[in-house]
Amino acid sequence: MLLEETLEKIRPLDHSADAAIQSRLDSLTKPVGSLGRLEELARRVSSIQGEIPARLGSKLLFVFAADHGIAQEGVSAYPKEVTAQMTYNFLQGGAAINVLARHYGVDVEVVDAGVDHNFPPLDGLRSCKIKRGTNNFARGAAMTREDARQSLETGIRLAEESAARKIFLLGAGEMGIGNTSSAAAILCAFTGLAVRDVTGKGTGIDAATWARKVTTIEAGLRLNQPDPKDALDVLSKVGGFEIGAIAGLILGAAAFRIPMVLDGYIGSAAAVLAHRFSPHVKDILFASHLSAEAGHRSMLDELELRELFDLNMRLGEGTGACIAIGLIEAAVKIMREMATFDSAGVAGKIS
Amino acid sequence: MLLEETLEKIRPLDHSADAAIQSRLDSLTKPVGSLGRLEELARRVSSIQGEIPARLGSKLLFVFAADHGIAQEGVSAYPKEVTAQMTYNFLQGGAAINVLARHYGVDVEVVDAGVDHNFPPLDGLRSCKIKRGTNNFARGAAMTREDARQSLETGIRLAEESAARKIFLLGAGEMGIGNTSSAAAILCAFTGLAVRDVTGKGTGIDAATWARKVTTIEAGLRLNQPDPKDALDVLSKVGGFEIGAIAGLILGAAAFRIPMVLDGYIGSAAAVLAHRFSPHVKDILFASHLSAEAGHRSMLDELELRELFDLNMRLGEGTGACIAIGLIEAAVKIMREMATFDSAGVAGKIS
Repeated sequence: MLLEETLEKIRPLDHSADAAIQSRLDSLTKPVGSLGRLEELARRVSSIQGEIPARLGSKLLFVFAADHGIAQEGVSAYPKEVTAQMTYNFLQGGAAINVLARHYGVDVEVVDAGVDHNFPPLDGLRSCKIKRGTNNFARGAAMTREDARQSLETGIRLAEESAARKIFLLGAGEMGIGNTSSAAAILCAFTGLAVRDVTGKGTGIDAATWARKVTTIEAGLRLNQPDPKDALDVLSKVGGFEIGAIAGLILGAAAFRIPMVLDGYIGSAAAVLAHRFSPHVKDILFASHLSAEAGHRSMLDELELRELFDLNMRLGEGTGACIAIGLIEAAVKIMREMATFDSAGVAGKIS
Repeated sequence: MLLEETLEKIRPLDHSADAAIQSRLDSLTKPVGSLGRLEELARRVSSIQGEIPARLGSKLLFVFAADHGIAQEGVSAYPKEVTAQMTYNFLQGGAAINVLARHYGVDVEVVDAGVDHNFPPLDGLRSCKIKRGTNNFARGAAMTREDARQSLETGIRLAEESAARKIFLLGAGEMGIGNTSSAAAILCAFTGLAVRDVTGKGTGIDAATWARKVTTIEAGLRLNQPDPKDALDVLSKVGGFEIGAIAGLILGAAAFRIPMVLDGYIGSAAAVLAHRFSPHVKDILFASHLSAEAGHRSMLDELELRELFDLNMRLGEGTGACIAIGLIEAAVKIMREMATFDSAGVAGKIS
C-alpha cells in the first residue's frame, strides 16, 4: 500500500518561518522586492525545505518514456516507433533535453515506464516497464487499475530514492507518441472542459488530424466514463504509464518535501492527476514554462500555478523544466551568496 | 572621430544564409519549430555571426557605474553614496549580478564611467571616469557635448576590445542613483511620451517622491529643450555617463557584429539612444526581461524588441541580461549539439 502510505505522509506547508525567510531576503544589498519572482522562488524553496537559507544540491530530471495505444488512431504526426528511437537518442545525449541538461548542470535519468520495445540492458536506462504500451483508450480502458497503481508507485519509489540522495530539485520530462491525447483526456475527465478547447497540435498535426484527434478523445471519454472522483479510475481509463509515473513522482516529492519542477502539457496533466490525490502537492510544485500546446493554461489554472516564462515551446522531454531548474537554483544562490547591507557597508533607504 | 567611424561600419544584417540556418534547425531531432523562441535566438546569433552553426565563446557583461546630479532633487529612495558603495560590492562579488554571473558563467567587468568618488586602483575596476557625476539636469545640461561624445566612445572602445577577444555574447548592466530619471527623460525627449506615463518607482520611492520625480524630469526637459533629431544633444542635456557608455557599447557591438543583451529600463534607454544614431543596432540587440519599471514596455516597443521573460524584476546591474545570456547560450548549444534525425536514426513526420 505504498500509494496510501505516501498520501498519509503529505502535510500542508508550515508557514511559521515565513517572516524569517523574508527578513533574510530583505537584508540583502538590493531594494526590497526588486528581484521579483526570483525572490518568490527562493522563499518557496526555503519554506519547502524548512531551511534558512535554502540549501543547494544536485538537480535531477527523470525522463519517462512510454507508448500509447491511442496512437493507433492516427492522432500523432509521428509514427509510434519514435518513442523507442528517441529513448535511444536520450541515452546517447543527442536530444534537446540532453543539451539543456548539460548546460544547466541537471542530471538526467531515462525511465522506461512502458515503451513498446524490448531494450537490452543499457547504461543510464532504468527499466520500470509496466507493459509494452497502454491499450487504445478509444476502444476500452488504457490499463488495469493495478497497472495504474504500479505506474504511480514507480514514481513514488524514484522520489523516495531522490530523498535519500538529498536531491535539491526534481524535474520530470516525458516522451510518448500519442501522449498529448491522454493528457487532454485526463484534464477533461477531471474538469469537464470541452476536448476541442484543450486539445492542441501536439508534435505538429494538420487540421484534419486535429479534428480526428478531438473526436477520438471524445469517444474515449464517452466509452470509458472515467469517474472524476476516483483519480485512479481516471488514470486507468485514459492515462499513460509515464503520466502515472510523473504523478507518483509528484506525490513522493510532496511526501518527502523535495521542490519539483513541472515541464509542459503532459507533466501538468500528471500534476492535475496528483492534485486530485492530494491538494497539498501544489505546495512543492513549480510551473516552468507556458507551453504552446492549447489547454496548458487550463492545467496551470487548475493547479493555481503561474508559469515563469513563455518561450512558445512545445517539445516536452523536460526542456522547459530544465530551464526553470536553472532559474530556481539561481534564486537560491541569491538568497545564500549575496552580501547584506551591513556586511557590504551599503547605506539603506532614506527614512 | 571614433563615433563617426563606428557609425560608418554599421551595416544592415545579411539575410542570405537564412534558409541554410533554418534547414540546420529543422534537421534536429524535434518537431519543426517546437523549441519556439530558443530557435529564434539561435537563428539570430547565427545570422549576426554569419556562421552555421553559430559559434560559442566567452560571455562578458560590463557593469557601468556613474552618479547623477539629478539625485540632488530627492528623486531616489537611496542616498547618492550608494553608487560608490555598490561599486565596491560588485568588486567584492556580493551583489546580485555577481551571484547570477557566477551561476550562468558570465564574466563581469566593472566600469567607473563617472562615479562621484575617487577609487584607489582596484583589481577588476576599469577607470573610465569622465567626471565625478553629471550636473543636475533640472538646473542645466547634464554634461557638455564633448563629455557626451567621450561617454559614447568609452563604450565603443570596450566593444572594439571585446571583438578582439572574440567575445560570444555581450551584456550591459548599470548602477547609478538617480539614473531612472535620466532614462525616463531620454525616452520622453525622443518620443514625446508623457513623463508621468513612463516614470516608475525606481528603487522604491513613495507616492510623494514619485510626484516630485515626475515634475523634476518635466522641468528638466522644459529647461534643456533637448533636440530629438540630435542624439548627442539629448545625451548631453539629460543623459548620464553610464547611459552614454552603454549606448556606445551597443554601437560598437553593431559595428563589430557581437550579439548584445539588454538589461532593463536604463539599458533600454541607452538602446533607444543608440537606435537614434543607427537604426541597424536592432539587428544585434536582444531584449532580456520586461522590467517592473513603468515605461520599459514603451522602450522595447520603440526598439521593436520583445522580452524573453517577465519576472517582475527591477534591480538593474545587468541581472536580467545575465539570465538571458544563459538562455541564448543554451539556444546556440541546441543548434550545435543536438543529433539530427539521420544521425540518431529517428523517423520523421508521417507523409
